[in-house]
Amino acid sequence: MTSVHPLDDTIALQWQPDGTATGRYPAHYWNMIGPFGGSTAALLLNGVMGHPERLGEPISLTVNYAGPVDQGPFELRARPVRTNRSTQHWIVELWHPGADGAAPALSTTATVVTAKRRPTWEASDAPMPAVPDADAVPRAWRPVQVPWLDRYEFRPIVGDIPATWDGSGEHSLSQLWMRDDPPRPLDFCGLAALCDVFFPRVWLRRAHRVPAGTVSMTVYFHADGRLLRTCGTDCVLGEARAQAYRHGFFDQSGLVWNRQGMLLASTHQIVYFKE
Amino acid sequence: MTSVHPLDDTIALQWQPDGTATGRYPAHYWNMIGPFGGSTAALLLNGVMGHPERLGEPISLTVNYAGPVDQGPFELRARPVRTNRSTQHWIVELWHPGADGAAPALSTTATVVTAKRRPTWEASDAPMPAVPDADAVPRAWRPVQVPWLDRYEFRPIVGDIPATWDGSGEHSLSQLWMRDDPPRPLDFCGLAALCDVFFPRVWLRRAHRVPAGTVSMTVYFHADGRLLRTCGTDCVLGEARAQAYRHGFFDQSGLVWNRQGMLLASTHQIVYFKE
Repeated sequence: MTSVHPLDDTIALQWQPDGTATGRYPAHYWNMIGPFGGSTAALLLNGVMGHPERLGEPISLTVNYAGPVDQGPFELRARPVRTNRSTQHWIVELWHPGADGAAPALSTTATVVTAKRRPTWEASDAPMPAVPDADAVPRAWRPVQVPWLDRYEFRPIVGDIPATWDGSGEHSLSQLWMRDDPPRPLDFCGLAALCDVFFPRVWLRRAHRVPAGTVSMTVYFHADGRLLRTCGTDCVLGEARAQAYRHGFFDQSGLVWNRQGMLLASTHQIVYFKE
Repeated sequence: MTSVHPLDDTIALQWQPDGTATGRYPAHYWNMIGPFGGSTAALLLNGVMGHPERLGEPISLTVNYAGPVDQGPFELRARPVRTNRSTQHWIVELWHPGADGAAPALSTTATVVTAKRRPTWEASDAPMPAVPDADAVPRAWRPVQVPWLDRYEFRPIVGDIPATWDGSGEHSLSQLWMRDDPPRPLDFCGLAALCDVFFPRVWLRRAHRVPAGTVSMTVYFHADGRLLRTCGTDCVLGEARAQAYRHGFFDQSGLVWNRQGMLLASTHQIVYFKE
């Protein structure tokens, strides 16, 4: 293990004088035919986090998975398209050079809102569910098939991946304790990636495995950087469920709390599925 | 009443030879200091619906409310940034000419995914709640303060706007039957606008009125055009609730069903609030 965390290695950017950034996608978070989408979300968000013109901290992130990402070099273009007194709006694009002189291809787009946050009245209408403590929940064993699954520690409480694919599914709810492996202090990029770790809800609901992939994911950050720093490398609780499956797409809504029950993020995605 | 519905008049576009479109914001959906955000969402989506290169129907829409929209002329730029075999990704921008020779200003951005949808296995994990039929729920009386409130018929069941602002709020759940006024056959643009009609959750939760405004809204369309056409001008059931309020922002999650209980859309937004 080098001293650089695999996620930091994955989202590392070389900034260019024209404000764009370049990088190369390593294999740490590889999935079957491309990278784990959460690591791509973290990469695009990092294009805003590292930008010299950034105002404040992320409030929302929407990532659109438009085309394939390969392990070659890429160019990341993050532009602040509007800067107000306390909020800023970004458009981010991930481009890949064309092979053999072909035109560059756009694989991923994102919009990000950052803001200067100030203390206000606060409350939560989504209390953390009553679950056993992380230490009391065994770590899930995963048949190691793809690298990204080794980059997380999962301690499933409800709705783990079906042990048998027998069509017996009844619900789409998963609850699990989770954190990076190796552990990594929580920050906005790490939290954005965690919002995409839930396996496709349609697999759970049907106990039947079909091709599926995220098309668009949104993350709302309820935590500021200060709260995230207090989380350190501790486990966080994740919960996800679907709402509708129809004509090749289903949606997923998720929540992430820290161990003390503070809601860190709410997240939503629309997912393509086959059959 | 003219023969053109106010929403259609609001989202009307004049297409230019270079693929951009122009228009002018009328007053039908005016709110206090700008247009009702749902009408702006419908406008940006219409920039995709009317574009000659569109593939399929909308799956997801994310609108970022970056700056003020005025009643003057605007330019709408909708670009298909990636077209695959069965999905297409769009970036949409709403620009306003600068006054007195100032540079044009970008007020709103959106990303849209469209897709060719095909029949698959289908299910819903979000059944319509048991509520009285629309005909049995009285229409809400609204002190007419802003034009857009007259553009909808609201029949609130749970969580109407507090009658008194006495700080007595306890939850953030609203359920209501709703439709356009005058009635308008449901389509993707009309449904996108309906996803933004819920008044700020923080008003309900606190029974206290504070400045608030949507920063980013996402809509996932579970209905295809064929299902929407069967809805006609009938009422739909809307439900919305918040999850967390902290440091100047809260989120809202919403669902919209047709009268027969089919989920038409799920929608999420992050909202700025003061105090």
